[in-house]
Amino acid sequence: MELFEKTLEQKYVYKGKIINLRTDKAILPDGKEAQREIVEHKGGVCVLPVDEKGNVFFVRQFRYAYMRELLEIPAGKRDAKDEKPIECGKRELKEETGITANEYVFLGELYPSPGYTDEVIYMYLARGLSYGKSRPDEDEFLNVEKIPFEKACEMVLNNEIKDAKTQTALLKAAALFAKENERK
Amino acid sequence: MELFEKTLEQKYVYKGKIINLRTDKAILPDGKEAQREIVEHKGGVCVLPVDEKGNVFFVRQFRYAYMRELLEIPAGKRDAKDEKPIECGKRELKEETGITANEYVFLGELYPSPGYTDEVIYMYLARGLSYGKSRPDEDEFLNVEKIPFEKACEMVLNNEIKDAKTQTALLKAAALFAKENERK
Repeated sequence: MELFEKTLEQKYVYKGKIINLRTDKAILPDGKEAQREIVEHKGGVCVLPVDEKGNVFFVRQFRYAYMRELLEIPAGKRDAKDEKPIECGKRELKEETGITANEYVFLGELYPSPGYTDEVIYMYLARGLSYGKSRPDEDEFLNVEKIPFEKACEMVLNNEIKDAKTQTALLKAAALFAKENERK
Repeated sequence: MELFEKTLEQKYVYKGKIINLRTDKAILPDGKEAQREIVEHKGGVCVLPVDEKGNVFFVRQFRYAYMRELLEIPAGKRDAKDEKPIECGKRELKEETGITANEYVFLGELYPSPGYTDEVIYMYLARGLSYGKSRPDEDEFLNVEKIPFEKACEMVLNNEIKDAKTQTALLKAAALFAKENERK
């Protein structure tokens, strides 16, 4: 079956700071019309910083949507849709944790919830870390926590880490490390 | 640092079919006020169906938010916030692929993008598969594709599979299979 939906009409319901919301009219593959609710987001970058002893640096912050604290790897939104993901990743890592890195390894893209958001999250592994002073955004409150990589992977498997980018980046890095060890 | 944000005011900007949008006023940990843009979603369930030969059943569908086709594991929204995830998973798997399963293994929860959505995706592995007739929703158009599990994991590591739930469920199942094999 040919799978394609064509836009008939775009309508902005909301234009905000982090997201916009559109309700579009689209033509479905069978020719019928349907409404599509789309959240627009500039996209983000997350960075998994691993030190030479195999520790991962996380940020713990209150997430209003869930009304609870979550453990996540450092991440942030792109300043603009054309900001290079790697530049955004370096900036957010420095701001949130004070860390800079010698080596960045691209871990792929993540589409968080394709049914309604156009957000793309670019994932990186960072190694060869140096430590400086963090400078979180004015309305950003977070604590940095250091957890051994193996323990963090166990926390993913045990459903203790819920965040999608954090789960995916950790498990992809584990696969990468396993391949690197095979080569040794 | 104590991390908590208290709601001062809730305001619905939009109430839709799949999502609602709220712009809340909240008090930050430092006592200042800030706006929080929150997408409300009933939550969803995804199921990774693996047959006795080690093949995974995927659905390929057009995702309007990205204006492209994506390869994902079967999934869907809960009918209501109190629908049991496992019941939702069984229903969506049957509707989208015609498959029913003898065994479901819980793979944990996924918070797709904690900065702005309250969606929770429950992930399951399904084994012991039986095949019947699929019945997708009226406005749902999808093709079912069968891919060997090892190949699917390679596609995740090579950035060919972008969907968050699909990447996470595959990598978690791979870790589970590795543990099961160790025990044998």
